[in-house]
Amino acid sequence: MVQSSGLHDQLSATFAALADPTRRAILARLASGDRSVTELAEPFDMSLPAVSKHLRVLERAGLIARSREAQWRPCRIKAAPLKEVAAWTERYRHIWEQRLDRLDVYLQELQSKQRKERQHGRKSRGK
Amino acid sequence: MVQSSGLHDQLSATFAALADPTRRAILARLASGDRSVTELAEPFDMSLPAVSKHLRVLERAGLIARSREAQWRPCRIKAAPLKEVAAWTERYRHIWEQRLDRLDVYLQELQSKQRKERQHGRKSRGK
Repeated sequence: MVQSSGLHDQLSATFAALADPTRRAILARLASGDRSVTELAEPFDMSLPAVSKHLRVLERAGLIARSREAQWRPCRIKAAPLKEVAAWTERYRHIWEQRLDRLDVYLQELQSKQRKERQHGRKSRGK
Repeated sequence: MVQSSGLHDQLSATFAALADPTRRAILARLASGDRSVTELAEPFDMSLPAVSKHLRVLERAGLIARSREAQWRPCRIKAAPLKEVAAWTERYRHIWEQRLDRLDVYLQELQSKQRKERQHGRKSRGK
């Protein structure tokens, strides 16, 4: 029997946190450097508490950390859960690559068929 | 202003569908070949309707497709959304690689310091 590890495993928490375009946009901004909550809120048409709520979800999932030292408490991206997501998707790479390979074989067969038809056409006209 | 594309964009739907260990276990089984709902339900301590509910979430997110032709309606994994997730995580690869590089530099410095200390120790004893 496959044991379900519950909804609160790390990977599930990461995927749930990433299932929101605002949270992904916040991560994209943090990828270029640490930012304060006010700086992060700027580009969004959202209140500071709404942004803080998203930051709490990201923090609980371990995707960001907030400094406790500096007065402005900068947010920092933490890449470990994203690395785990990348490793998880790698298990499926062979599927999309195989399907692309099959498409490639099909297109090559199609091209070869067309080439033969053209050659046959030329020979027929040459007779 | 950053425009939020809403909760129903493809990537959010994919992440939400993946935020469950049972759904990820179903995908893992489908990675080795098409399966019927009954076959998919087997390893789980779940009712058929509960498994069907998970399959509907996966189907809506475009992660699986169910054949309408065969009597047993086999489920098939669809890799396109997983490829999209892989491409999304790639944008963050430089972050975890940079941090690993920095750790590497730190460890090399530590080793070099220890080596110097050992050499210095030998010289002192040699005097």
